[in-house]
Amino acid sequence: MIIIMERDASAENIQAVTSLLKEHGFQVIVHEGDVHTVIDALGDKTTLSPGRIDAMEGVKKIKLIREPFRLASRDRQTEDTVIEFENGVKIGGANRPVLMVGPCSVEDNYEGLLKVAVAAKEMGCQFLRGGAFKPRTSPYDFDGLGEKGLQYLAKAKEETGLLVVTELMDSTDLDLVCRYADVIQIGARNMQNFKLLKAVGKCDKPVILKRGQSSTIREFLLAAEHIMYNGNEKVILCERGVRSFDSAFTRNLLDISAVPVIKKYSHLPIIVDPSHGTGQRYLIEPMAKAGLVVGADGIMVEVHHNPACALSDGKQSLSIPQFKEVFARLNTLIDTLHLEKNVSLSCVE
Amino acid sequence: MIIIMERDASAENIQAVTSLLKEHGFQVIVHEGDVHTVIDALGDKTTLSPGRIDAMEGVKKIKLIREPFRLASRDRQTEDTVIEFENGVKIGGANRPVLMVGPCSVEDNYEGLLKVAVAAKEMGCQFLRGGAFKPRTSPYDFDGLGEKGLQYLAKAKEETGLLVVTELMDSTDLDLVCRYADVIQIGARNMQNFKLLKAVGKCDKPVILKRGQSSTIREFLLAAEHIMYNGNEKVILCERGVRSFDSAFTRNLLDISAVPVIKKYSHLPIIVDPSHGTGQRYLIEPMAKAGLVVGADGIMVEVHHNPACALSDGKQSLSIPQFKEVFARLNTLIDTLHLEKNVSLSCVE
Amino acid sequence: MIIIMERDASAENIQAVTSLLKEHGFQVIVHEGDVHTVIDALGDKTTLSPGRIDAMEGVKKIKLIREPFRLASRDRQTEDTVIEFENGVKIGGANRPVLMVGPCSVEDNYEGLLKVAVAAKEMGCQFLRGGAFKPRTSPYDFDGLGEKGLQYLAKAKEETGLLVVTELMDSTDLDLVCRYADVIQIGARNMQNFKLLKAVGKCDKPVILKRGQSSTIREFLLAAEHIMYNGNEKVILCERGVRSFDSAFTRNLLDISAVPVIKKYSHLPIIVDPSHGTGQRYLIEPMAKAGLVVGADGIMVEVHHNPACALSDGKQSLSIPQFKEVFARLNTLIDTLHLEKNVSLSCVE
Amino acid sequence: MIIIMERDASAENIQAVTSLLKEHGFQVIVHEGDVHTVIDALGDKTTLSPGRIDAMEGVKKIKLIREPFRLASRDRQTEDTVIEFENGVKIGGANRPVLMVGPCSVEDNYEGLLKVAVAAKEMGCQFLRGGAFKPRTSPYDFDGLGEKGLQYLAKAKEETGLLVVTELMDSTDLDLVCRYADVIQIGARNMQNFKLLKAVGKCDKPVILKRGQSSTIREFLLAAEHIMYNGNEKVILCERGVRSFDSAFTRNLLDISAVPVIKKYSHLPIIVDPSHGTGQRYLIEPMAKAGLVVGADGIMVEVHHNPACALSDGKQSLSIPQFKEVFARLNTLIDTLHLEKNVSLSCVE
Repeated sequence: MIIIMERDASAENIQAVTSLLKEHGFQVIVHEGDVHTVIDALGDKTTLSPGRIDAMEGVKKIKLIREPFRLASRDRQTEDTVIEFENGVKIGGANRPVLMVGPCSVEDNYEGLLKVAVAAKEMGCQFLRGGAFKPRTSPYDFDGLGEKGLQYLAKAKEETGLLVVTELMDSTDLDLVCRYADVIQIGARNMQNFKLLKAVGKCDKPVILKRGQSSTIREFLLAAEHIMYNGNEKVILCERGVRSFDSAFTRNLLDISAVPVIKKYSHLPIIVDPSHGTGQRYLIEPMAKAGLVVGADGIMVEVHHNPACALSDGKQSLSIPQFKEVFARLNTLIDTLHLEKNVSLSCVE
Repeated sequence: MIIIMERDASAENIQAVTSLLKEHGFQVIVHEGDVHTVIDALGDKTTLSPGRIDAMEGVKKIKLIREPFRLASRDRQTEDTVIEFENGVKIGGANRPVLMVGPCSVEDNYEGLLKVAVAAKEMGCQFLRGGAFKPRTSPYDFDGLGEKGLQYLAKAKEETGLLVVTELMDSTDLDLVCRYADVIQIGARNMQNFKLLKAVGKCDKPVILKRGQSSTIREFLLAAEHIMYNGNEKVILCERGVRSFDSAFTRNLLDISAVPVIKKYSHLPIIVDPSHGTGQRYLIEPMAKAGLVVGADGIMVEVHHNPACALSDGKQSLSIPQFKEVFARLNTLIDTLHLEKNVSLSCVE
Repeated sequence: MIIIMERDASAENIQAVTSLLKEHGFQVIVHEGDVHTVIDALGDKTTLSPGRIDAMEGVKKIKLIREPFRLASRDRQTEDTVIEFENGVKIGGANRPVLMVGPCSVEDNYEGLLKVAVAAKEMGCQFLRGGAFKPRTSPYDFDGLGEKGLQYLAKAKEETGLLVVTELMDSTDLDLVCRYADVIQIGARNMQNFKLLKAVGKCDKPVILKRGQSSTIREFLLAAEHIMYNGNEKVILCERGVRSFDSAFTRNLLDISAVPVIKKYSHLPIIVDPSHGTGQRYLIEPMAKAGLVVGADGIMVEVHHNPACALSDGKQSLSIPQFKEVFARLNTLIDTLHLEKNVSLSCVE
Repeated sequence: MIIIMERDASAENIQAVTSLLKEHGFQVIVHEGDVHTVIDALGDKTTLSPGRIDAMEGVKKIKLIREPFRLASRDRQTEDTVIEFENGVKIGGANRPVLMVGPCSVEDNYEGLLKVAVAAKEMGCQFLRGGAFKPRTSPYDFDGLGEKGLQYLAKAKEETGLLVVTELMDSTDLDLVCRYADVIQIGARNMQNFKLLKAVGKCDKPVILKRGQSSTIREFLLAAEHIMYNGNEKVILCERGVRSFDSAFTRNLLDISAVPVIKKYSHLPIIVDPSHGTGQRYLIEPMAKAGLVVGADGIMVEVHHNPACALSDGKQSLSIPQFKEVFARLNTLIDTLHLEKNVSLSCVE
């Protein structure tokens, strides 16, 4: 930790900071510059919060050396985390990228859902996604079927063998959702719902954590840290676009570079969601490809049996025939680039 | 609702859209432009979601005429909402702006809290704020005293008569928090935690809803709409800064213009939080003044008996002597400008 | 054009708007809604600026139907623009993506520049880029060699046959730069320097127009429109990252989706610059690949003979050995995916 | 300067960095942490660009201690810069805030301009603003009268005694603009047009530098530094709103906190432009007041003799009667708060 004092900090201010640091076992070096005094502190930040020093009189700024996330950091674990499911499917590391598809919300039409699931199975997907509880910006919009939706997902799993991904919105529904889901999804709007992170941190299901709409990569990894800190290390990150100043052509700005950045600083798997990331059907294919070539461990795409009638997100969903066309090309890309072997991902440091 | 078709939309596409609109009782006018066909639909959007049309083949874009928030809208209620408390304190309308102060988190030091409360009372504040449950970006930070914190707040209320504002983070704690709080705060990170909004929508306490870090004004008002839609119309909005591309000098960018914008489009009261809005102690006073002159119905500021030792947000908290100095000047400003009479707020339409 | 009137607009306000529209030859339809009156106007916006109506009493908002760019629009020209150089190199359409490399600034070391150029030639690049005039955020930084830099570029062209790309910063240098450059670059900070756009619009050299740091896609295409409107249709767009709220890990956020969006709405070629787009050497390769798979017409990368001593942007430059490694893999990707045939780019509409 | 090395930096990497630093006369201290080595370097950054070190092998990040702006910094000059005009008008320091009004563009209607100027004089304004050269996002919009516009401004000055503020867009027009202007304005889109900054840096007229739409405060002050570095210290900063993710209700987000931030770190005067800052007529008054109470040295507002017919920015311009109403209230606010004496601006550090 490096502490930069204000131009007009007094000797007492400086003394107060160094004393506190020493009390907490830090090694301290003071540089008196022409303008600012700079204090260098080496030690374990867990024993003294930087915020506390930041608030002292005469302190201008604190600069941290190490990233504040630990369990999620490559500094702690250099090899990639791989998450394995009962049926042998694996996410992360050198494994073939996984494919997750399904409607935004599970609607009261089991036949429609099953059609999507059957097509998904046929195209080599491993996961069926669908929301039974839906966060909606407006209270006037459809907010999900609830348990009935979960039952439909379970039934489709039974018929196809696909693993089920579904969103948890409130800690009170945790047990219910765990009964049906193979992977629990935490939505973007709940990325910093810390009670919810704590709750899923205490269960043993893998968790897909979606990046908040304006969360930095650091906050994203710290949200993962909350889950891991509570005991669940099976976290799958999901880049799904961030808010930008331009929403005329896309709903969000899909941050493709987040994938290689996170691969460098964390061992956790990361997938890409081009449906929410762009909000536009015609961008799903190119952006899924972009995610794959930069090393994403999977792709999550919205597919609906009849997008024009979808109760949510129809605009960014593929129909079943479109899905087959697009995923045939994605599978070819994965095969051609041998993405399962990570051959093309070596990069210059 | 205006529907703009794609350049290459077919006659069938156009037909499908107009049929669906007519089925739902909309009056429909079709303009065939040189490049795009534009469909004009007049009717009640609650019977047909715009998203459904947006997802149809050949549809380029939907433009809505009315704001999607209703209960919160000035279109529905032209006079300002005024919220009155048992002790006669009022927020909103032509009432004198209220003052809410207190530590970021309630810490295990009742004496410290009481000192702040006594000073607050002395300076004419009406509310004591303090978090017993704290959302923290990192799992390694202090996350609140829990019920003990609530008890401290209640005790300070007993001694000073100040009303208590405290944050609710999870619907499971609703009853607990309601036992102690006069106003329930929903934090910025939970602005779109819809389960939580629903829960407070069903209780009868006034709610302070803080603007999400990257939420638009429309989303902010729609979050208020969620609470109102569930039955609780006593919503106080709070502008507390949004995320910007520049965080070198301030933690957030305090959007002062949100106050007059919201005053124009909604009847709900709105207060300003310059502590979170800037993250800098020296900016609290000027930005509180800015909030007051543009018509804010109150100011919320962090005050700590010893900011240098605060367990959270010390950097943006005033000490008690600083608080007295600053609030004496804020009170003078309110008096000088007769802000309670809204005299200076008349503005050109 | 659709005009939405304020809730409290008077009959006179509405009358004034419709009269003006009719005067300018628009066909006008008025819908009186419960809350707002909406006026529908069909006609040629070039005869009446929407801004003029927007400023009239009682007007709440104007909504335009057609994009404001015309010459750059696919509505006007459905086939891709292809720019051909004297030596047969082509940019755009179904042509193999072009590769442009070179140092950020041309420094006073011709040997260094030549080494880069020779390596570039060897790896199949067609363009040598380098700045002789450099925009610098701080006045204390190196701002370019001026004409000497241009001469070095010309000499390297003579020896290798590479085409020269270099930046123009001021209209007074246009003739000078044209004497040496095959392609004139307009930097991100000058994207809305309209005098400069006008100047290059009057010359006959192809222009690379870099996207401004916070410019929307619409503004980007309108900047291209300025050049085209002045007579020069040989515009190559360049996506180089936009400013975001997170600059901890990357300098800018490279907007990969801008490539397929622009391909849909404009016929102009677009290239990607992962050096400026990320500011990080290790991200050049993955982000160049991402750009290529979504259909970019070229890639521009900074390469320096000794990045550790570069006078600018060393952090985001490849060394010559790194460049060879990375570009060998990029060439393989281009070959494997047959990107020159655009096979993989077909996408669902 | 503090240099943080990568986790896997080699001893040679570290050696190379320390050697280079020592060569340039820096005092160097090396801390070997568990994970990262941190190098502390004290010395004069002007002799060695941090960028050069940042680009060396094994370097993760550079952290600077001092702000990169110098001439503009309070570290160099603690008292406020005050700019005085021939007629005794002063901007900055404890002087009464100045008022600048006029149409966005000077149009071919001298009578209209004169009406505005006469009203401005009457209301105590000191400056008449108006653009003769206009930057326009679209090439199809009116771009100014050119020299004729300058002549109109000069004539209005003759009749009213108001000082003239007008924009310079291209260095080739410098002499022309200087003949007519008392203050040269550099527009937001040209804030980083370094050739233009250099040009005005060499003339002796005061310069209003508008903040770029997405420029950080640091970049803003560095742009001022460019002008000062070239010899002209008479720089007036102008906050005019930044780009945000929400443009539904306002054109830009007016960053009121930039005023007290800049007052703390720089001695230069700063004014606020609520017309461009919000894009909405009804927000001009409240946001002008907000600017004044936080200490702005002036306000710049668009006023047009007939906003509904303005060739640009009518939506954000006041009519003459509105202007009189609003400015009467602004003058009262200035008087009531004794803003000329800075009494209300003292703030807690």
